[in-house]
Amino acid sequence: MSHIPYIENIKSWQESFHFYHSVKVRFSETDMFGHLNNTVPFVYFEEARIEFFKRIGLMQKWTLSASTEIPVVANIQCDFIKQVFFDQHLKVYVKVNHIGSSSIDLHYMGTTNEGEIVFSGRGTIVQISKSTGKSSPWSEEVKELLMNDQKFQVN
Amino acid sequence: MSHIPYIENIKSWQESFHFYHSVKVRFSETDMFGHLNNTVPFVYFEEARIEFFKRIGLMQKWTLSASTEIPVVANIQCDFIKQVFFDQHLKVYVKVNHIGSSSIDLHYMGTTNEGEIVFSGRGTIVQISKSTGKSSPWSEEVKELLMNDQKFQVN
Amino acid sequence: MSHIPYIENIKSWQESFHFYHSVKVRFSETDMFGHLNNTVPFVYFEEARIEFFKRIGLMQKWTLSASTEIPVVANIQCDFIKQVFFDQHLKVYVKVNHIGSSSIDLHYMGTTNEGEIVFSGRGTIVQISKSTGKSSPWSEEVKELLMNDQKFQVN
Amino acid sequence: MSHIPYIENIKSWQESFHFYHSVKVRFSETDMFGHLNNTVPFVYFEEARIEFFKRIGLMQKWTLSASTEIPVVANIQCDFIKQVFFDQHLKVYVKVNHIGSSSIDLHYMGTTNEGEIVFSGRGTIVQISKSTGKSSPWSEEVKELLMNDQKFQVN
Repeated sequence: MSHIPYIENIKSWQESFHFYHSVKVRFSETDMFGHLNNTVPFVYFEEARIEFFKRIGLMQKWTLSASTEIPVVANIQCDFIKQVFFDQHLKVYVKVNHIGSSSIDLHYMGTTNEGEIVFSGRGTIVQISKSTGKSSPWSEEVKELLMNDQKFQVN
Repeated sequence: MSHIPYIENIKSWQESFHFYHSVKVRFSETDMFGHLNNTVPFVYFEEARIEFFKRIGLMQKWTLSASTEIPVVANIQCDFIKQVFFDQHLKVYVKVNHIGSSSIDLHYMGTTNEGEIVFSGRGTIVQISKSTGKSSPWSEEVKELLMNDQKFQVN
Repeated sequence: MSHIPYIENIKSWQESFHFYHSVKVRFSETDMFGHLNNTVPFVYFEEARIEFFKRIGLMQKWTLSASTEIPVVANIQCDFIKQVFFDQHLKVYVKVNHIGSSSIDLHYMGTTNEGEIVFSGRGTIVQISKSTGKSSPWSEEVKELLMNDQKFQVN
Repeated sequence: MSHIPYIENIKSWQESFHFYHSVKVRFSETDMFGHLNNTVPFVYFEEARIEFFKRIGLMQKWTLSASTEIPVVANIQCDFIKQVFFDQHLKVYVKVNHIGSSSIDLHYMGTTNEGEIVFSGRGTIVQISKSTGKSSPWSEEVKELLMNDQKFQVN
């Protein structure tokens, strides 16, 4: 595995994750090269991230039609470490790496059920105002939820 | 080609189409069997149908946030006639087959640039009220647009 | 619910299903009209169908690189009965409706966890030869597997 | 626009692109937040990259069934600069940023037709052997093609 800029020590990095969401590779997610198409881990990242946000109570707020804020992806990246194939079971882990004033930096790790890392990722989510499109600071209550994510480690 | 219930005479059916939208098969739309995944023609049908609705001035109305009505797919089907592969250029034809009081029956035909049919389809679109979810009758003006689609035959 | 041609009696039709696969609606599967995009049930149908084929031992055969046959979708259709939204849990049922010499007619039913039908479908799968692209008859052994699917009813 | 690590000077970076592929945002590519889902630019990157590889003659080689090598994505990332909406026309630019022994670093830029940047990206493609999965060095001929991409600047 070549150097991945957002991972300092692979062992401690791997151990720092607690929350995961399970997925199984769909046939329609493969491509003619016979493996998982490279665009699909981002679908898994989104699904795992939303499950994480639901677990800490944030997603419910954002999907209310009355909500004045929505989360948007400011940037996201994926490092492909092992080829993934049809019907494989994966665990897609998510953790909060850093909390900014209106943004949050998340790390992602996809592993087999046996714990072998197949892809990793990171990305920034920003909370914006639906009406203005401008970034909107986290409330103290939300910051609290994000900082206490260790409470939600048992899946 | 086996019998397709909504096509009486293939030659006159093929000639009855005028409007089409061009697509090219994306790599991410193939699957590990090496051809276009069977779920993708429905993406093409939607794209071609929307281009058709834009051409006659309907789509603009529906995507206004102030619009009280939206079109929904009540049913849709596809018959796969020839395998389709990565990077193929296709023409996806759409025509109005029948206009109901709040619905419309559309036919679809996918061909190669040389005019060989690779898939066909049909489906019903219903206009519903955003607030109630119930079907909402076409206005006379919209019916007029739908009936005069022959005017829009040159692409 | 308007008339669906492949359903004679909705109650007995619903009761005739045994096998199902569970899915949850992903955020990326919604569209700007706020509900499940109409192209996605076909992804669910494929996933449920493949789980069914795996259960009876067919899919393993087809995805071997040495396999000389693959299953292809000859036609498929979906009737949308109730709008489906982000994060809904669905059961996607599959059953064999009819077995031909080299094809099979499958029925599909999507329900909420409470058993309310949200969409239905049907479609023909044909076994073809990888090399010629022509239809390839079921072996007696495979026919047996397909006919005995009642054995696999407990999920 | 906040700092993007792989862009030193935005003006000279923007001017360094020549090749682009045009796309139009599909309805099925939006999500319930009303904009382009964050997973879709990676589909556009793949499509634009493949068009680029076709232009210089590489893609044709890789999709031959006799080919012993295939290109795989080693890593890829996207920075979302402006929200993108249904039916927008985009130009997706690709350029070679760096050529390694068996890999290539590509940069991506998505703009409106008027030239406003809506997203940017970068990623590494590695050529691997189909049979071993190990990286496989570029031939001199391929390196030549990749280095001379300036010849292919007119779209």
